[in-house]
Amino acid sequence: MQNFTFKNPTQILFGKGQISNLAQHIPAGARVLMTYGGGSIKTNGVYDQVVAALQGITWFEFAGIEPNPHYETLMEAVAVVKAKNIDFLLAVGGGSVVDGTKLIAAAVNFEGEPWDILAKNATFTSALPLACVLTLPATGTESNGNSVVTRASTQEKLAFGSPLVYPQFAVLDPETTYSLPPRQIGNGVVDAFVHIIEQYLTYPVNAKVQDRIAEGLLLTLIEEGPKALTEPKNYDVRANVMWAATVALNGLIGVGVPQDWATHMIGHEITALHGLDHAQTLAVVLPSLMYQQRQQKREKLLQFGRRVWGLESDNAEVLIDQTIAATRDFFERMGVPTRLRDYGVPETSVDVLVAQLVQHNYVKLGEHGDITPEVSRAILLAAW
Amino acid sequence: MQNFTFKNPTQILFGKGQISNLAQHIPAGARVLMTYGGGSIKTNGVYDQVVAALQGITWFEFAGIEPNPHYETLMEAVAVVKAKNIDFLLAVGGGSVVDGTKLIAAAVNFEGEPWDILAKNATFTSALPLACVLTLPATGTESNGNSVVTRASTQEKLAFGSPLVYPQFAVLDPETTYSLPPRQIGNGVVDAFVHIIEQYLTYPVNAKVQDRIAEGLLLTLIEEGPKALTEPKNYDVRANVMWAATVALNGLIGVGVPQDWATHMIGHEITALHGLDHAQTLAVVLPSLMYQQRQQKREKLLQFGRRVWGLESDNAEVLIDQTIAATRDFFERMGVPTRLRDYGVPETSVDVLVAQLVQHNYVKLGEHGDITPEVSRAILLAAW
Repeated sequence: MQNFTFKNPTQILFGKGQISNLAQHIPAGARVLMTYGGGSIKTNGVYDQVVAALQGITWFEFAGIEPNPHYETLMEAVAVVKAKNIDFLLAVGGGSVVDGTKLIAAAVNFEGEPWDILAKNATFTSALPLACVLTLPATGTESNGNSVVTRASTQEKLAFGSPLVYPQFAVLDPETTYSLPPRQIGNGVVDAFVHIIEQYLTYPVNAKVQDRIAEGLLLTLIEEGPKALTEPKNYDVRANVMWAATVALNGLIGVGVPQDWATHMIGHEITALHGLDHAQTLAVVLPSLMYQQRQQKREKLLQFGRRVWGLESDNAEVLIDQTIAATRDFFERMGVPTRLRDYGVPETSVDVLVAQLVQHNYVKLGEHGDITPEVSRAILLAAW
Repeated sequence: MQNFTFKNPTQILFGKGQISNLAQHIPAGARVLMTYGGGSIKTNGVYDQVVAALQGITWFEFAGIEPNPHYETLMEAVAVVKAKNIDFLLAVGGGSVVDGTKLIAAAVNFEGEPWDILAKNATFTSALPLACVLTLPATGTESNGNSVVTRASTQEKLAFGSPLVYPQFAVLDPETTYSLPPRQIGNGVVDAFVHIIEQYLTYPVNAKVQDRIAEGLLLTLIEEGPKALTEPKNYDVRANVMWAATVALNGLIGVGVPQDWATHMIGHEITALHGLDHAQTLAVVLPSLMYQQRQQKREKLLQFGRRVWGLESDNAEVLIDQTIAATRDFFERMGVPTRLRDYGVPETSVDVLVAQLVQHNYVKLGEHGDITPEVSRAILLAAW
């Protein structure tokens, strides 16, 4: 096991009815800005629940944070924060709303162009406190310090992270997910699944606790994911998916082990250029990346196949092929196609995607830094 | 899954050499009291490492916190804290030192008799900040708000808990455990194992993430525990045991599920009256309790047997018997006998132990509150 430090300060408020308890966790006297997206929270009752919970608190709202939140939109929110003297942010929605709100929090006191936080890894020394009411289990952003933001004008999708933007608390009520369309459930399960894989499927360092937890989360998503599609109002199913997605990226399974975020990095370029949903890009890239990196990931691929998929072949190469096929099949069963051509992306786009990876300096991806642009090209071609 | 709130603010500093980094996590200008036990840290080098790390910091020391820390000793430490104007406590040792230091932290500003914190559940509104360097993986106290203290004069062993006494940080260096005698390794593994069981082995509430994590921790202890005895300087083995013991009781597997701490409660009385090591009492009580409560715990006993012990009998009663036998055998293989008579406790003590449970009002133990004094008597008689 590698050395590590770990701390996760986010308070989780989990379960039905927890929205009604959120006010007690907001500092007294705070001026709150509720941020949200396209308005689905107004049709599914979540907006009304939050408004009721905020009774007695001075609050404002900022709507319109889009999927793959746009930097341009978030800068409008920063102007509102300054104009209204906001001192607490409450994100209500899915991962994009929470991610976007993290950038708002970081940008408010930032001197200069806040895009530098993403593009130049510029440091910031303070951020507005924020919290969230999560309505879409997927990204894990509700209890970590990470965020991904897209600049619409340049089609760039970049990430930043800081301990300063951990949500102070996160309300996770599985009932808020009942009204999600199947596409978002499928996407969420795939996203969480791939987060786990990216912290698990590298090379063994004898970190048994992390491995076992990762495998337990994968098994949970495999058991509950399809049921989340067929039984949309099964509370326990939604609860298990929601909690699995949070633990998948709250830091716990990533401590003390190598990680490989190449699937996300390559996927971000596909979303930026072709507008695929984030999880769709992951479902496309991961099976192909597993195949391409099968030698480097050999031992963990075998462990994954045996412990998670219950495969038993004596032939290691066959077992690895079956493992990749089972993973691909799971994504397809979740309603997320796994080929670039399924989304109408032309094969000729591969060169453009590789050029974008080079431009963003993603030229040594993977746990060994050996996913060069040429390897990314092979992954994308095989994913077509 | 039941509703829950979860927050764990302790920062973990895990791995070899981490003691040298502890000073940067102590508030600037703090006057530190290092607390420790019988002095093993002076022979295994940990004391010297901590002293070196504290260079430049004003610090004092308080030695002599015994196993099952005595209230009387801890009150002496409180006097030192007041005399030296201490404002930060650094516990260096095993669970007893950390538990004892938590009571010191809580007692310093407490008006009245601090024993009331344990005996009368008296509330306290502030505590000195504390941190720890853990040298014995077992209790999980390094990242939770719980403490157990014994009053020597009355042979009472009682618990308290508060968010105010979470360690601010915990240094976990597996190398500090190399010099532990086998008895303490065996005890530590059994203690952690039973902590997991007490949050897992109740009745199903369809909390799949918690179940899978608990099972993963149990599998880790089963795989690594015996190796910790035979390969005392195997770093990864010690690291896996240490991290498993921490996650076992950092709150994660206990959220949203019923719990049954009857084994601990009954065990505490045995330690108070007969001086058995804490883990010895757990190894005695748990198999007997599993047998006695086999109907109430039926479904989880079967799940435990199948998923953790890999048992496959078609006959449920046989499978449960095998599960209990496998658990008892594991404790014995860890060098911890599982019968009261193995420790020279006379059968006639059972009545005294039951009387003590009644005196402490532990008369409705277990996840259903159905472990009455009569049931405790049956458990203890079967454990003799």
